[in-house]
Amino acid sequence: MEAMPANTPSAPEPSALPVPRDGIVGEAPYGAPQLEVAHALNVNENPFGPSPELAAAIGSAASEAATGLHRYPDREALDLRRELGQFLAEESSVPAPAAEAVWAANGSNEIMHQLLLAYGGPGRTALGFTPHYSMYPEYARDTYTAWVTAERGPGPDFALTAEMVTAAIAEHTPAIVVLTSPNNPTGTALGLDVVEAAARALAPTRGMLVVDEAYGEFRRDGVPSALSLLDVHPNLVVTRTMSKAFALAGARLGYLVADPAIVDAVRVVRLPYHLSAVTQAVARTALAHREELLGRVALLRSERDALAAHLAGRGHEVAPSDANFVLFRAFADRDDVFQALLERGVLIRAVGPAGWLRVSVGTPEDNAAFRTALEEADPR
Amino acid sequence: MEAMPANTPSAPEPSALPVPRDGIVGEAPYGAPQLEVAHALNVNENPFGPSPELAAAIGSAASEAATGLHRYPDREALDLRRELGQFLAEESSVPAPAAEAVWAANGSNEIMHQLLLAYGGPGRTALGFTPHYSMYPEYARDTYTAWVTAERGPGPDFALTAEMVTAAIAEHTPAIVVLTSPNNPTGTALGLDVVEAAARALAPTRGMLVVDEAYGEFRRDGVPSALSLLDVHPNLVVTRTMSKAFALAGARLGYLVADPAIVDAVRVVRLPYHLSAVTQAVARTALAHREELLGRVALLRSERDALAAHLAGRGHEVAPSDANFVLFRAFADRDDVFQALLERGVLIRAVGPAGWLRVSVGTPEDNAAFRTALEEADPR
Repeated sequence: MEAMPANTPSAPEPSALPVPRDGIVGEAPYGAPQLEVAHALNVNENPFGPSPELAAAIGSAASEAATGLHRYPDREALDLRRELGQFLAEESSVPAPAAEAVWAANGSNEIMHQLLLAYGGPGRTALGFTPHYSMYPEYARDTYTAWVTAERGPGPDFALTAEMVTAAIAEHTPAIVVLTSPNNPTGTALGLDVVEAAARALAPTRGMLVVDEAYGEFRRDGVPSALSLLDVHPNLVVTRTMSKAFALAGARLGYLVADPAIVDAVRVVRLPYHLSAVTQAVARTALAHREELLGRVALLRSERDALAAHLAGRGHEVAPSDANFVLFRAFADRDDVFQALLERGVLIRAVGPAGWLRVSVGTPEDNAAFRTALEEADPR
Repeated sequence: MEAMPANTPSAPEPSALPVPRDGIVGEAPYGAPQLEVAHALNVNENPFGPSPELAAAIGSAASEAATGLHRYPDREALDLRRELGQFLAEESSVPAPAAEAVWAANGSNEIMHQLLLAYGGPGRTALGFTPHYSMYPEYARDTYTAWVTAERGPGPDFALTAEMVTAAIAEHTPAIVVLTSPNNPTGTALGLDVVEAAARALAPTRGMLVVDEAYGEFRRDGVPSALSLLDVHPNLVVTRTMSKAFALAGARLGYLVADPAIVDAVRVVRLPYHLSAVTQAVARTALAHREELLGRVALLRSERDALAAHLAGRGHEVAPSDANFVLFRAFADRDDVFQALLERGVLIRAVGPAGWLRVSVGTPEDNAAFRTALEEADPR
């Protein structure tokens, strides 16, 4: 792919390169740095890899799938979708959604992209509440949907109330509202009253409410899931992922639950055969081993609570977290603290409101290393 | 996900369902029927599954990848992209493209979608030549790109000349032109003069030329690949897939080769971590076993030529094919012939110009079954 020398008669003019559409030129691809560090606490991964037994089971499932890899995969992935529904029924004590009410794709990213492909577009607006996950504006950009935001309340609570949500809906008349529970990067879960208020406020204009529960399995006891509202609000979509609690970030499996009519609209815009036969097999194997995978969630929740208490004990402002990360306000300049931690082998994320830092909950060893490094990186 | 009875006070109004954007309501999801038949010759799959050794190697690679599945995958997939470039260098006798000139995604579908996301959009037009692969208009619809077409020449040659291509470009001033070599569903490959004429005609308006070579590895001896033109035409993109010659349709791996500046624009619109760690591992394993996988290509080419000769011998009009399928004109009504074949356990595709049918090249047994069934399904 060497460029030819400029004096060759057939040499290309550099100007002959095609021109990307508006909004793409000069943009950087999304993504946190992928660095080799001792303690990667920057992208809210689950720190626990699968057991040797589960890794072997995944290999065995892939090997079995491999015998049919010359054929296209099951385009509908109905077995996987049914089993995801069964898991949700257990996890959130709701009636199991039928396979037709569940949809799966390559990560929550593709789920959100597909929802905006089908329900966003030119002339339509999607509304979120800041601070929020940095990809939402990109989904909107890539689907020509206008992205507008309203602010959550101030830290450390970053609260979002029914009044704030209905006021923002009244102001923007969005086709889509994205609520997050728990929210990334603040860790804040939502009361069902907030979700219901949004669903009701959107119904007259036939808008859609998406509740992103990527971190839902980490929520504290007594904190509800929006899944329980699906039966009464046909404009509600709940999204989940296997990247976090299921420790399957590398396998890319996100999913949603909604009225089958919404799933059907998404099926129109999905790329055919979007979910590989191996992805389907790996995800189903992980679901079958959910006792092992979700067994670590209890430990991570308790580590999270201990980490939050430790940070509060040091005098930091700490956002109450229902997720597998903790957002806290640094004493010193946050970029300096980030860098000083990195020099000590601990990679976290400078994200969220100015002055705040987000640390993922790692193994007990990771979390101890973080606490130790923080003593020097951000002395009281 | 049972709907509540209509007389329940909190029952949803059906009208509260959100409304998809224009162009989605009433559309059916793309896809050929996925039926259980003895001889599936309808979606141009490679009929040969991997050897037991390769299936085991894929399982082993997946098992190894599984140990790190709690982490996000390598977002750039540089190892895979480098190895794809090395394969192309061997296959088409071109200098190996650098990893930065190669891009991989979940099937050619996602490759095309990403190209149109970055280079199409409202106010931009993409041009193709009919009959063509049925997904192109869907990529355009999903990216708000206008899809326009010009006609290839008549059957059985379905020729496309430099003059036809430059005339259509002059008429439509497209931002993107999609040429296909070999073309699906006709099997027609293109001369490099046609590709060069299109690239040159697009250069003044900085348009992009995409040459879809999904079936490139099946081309007959002496038929060129557009890969040899990449050095002189910076607006040229060549797409390939591992679904066909590599017999990996179930694993979803498409790729492109282009100027790194084009790859960089695609990287802006790709969803982060779009390619799972398992997909990367499976594709790299298949590449490492390419001798086995591509060894079947020679047999399939010879089966294709024999099939085309057989059909011509029966008196059918037959499109000369450089792909792993043959398009032929039925004697009787094509839908009747399709149905009569299906009743005999042979599933082909009623696609392309009225009256024509497309049959994928299967194993020698599949092809013999097709020939036998056709005697009764479409008697001379």
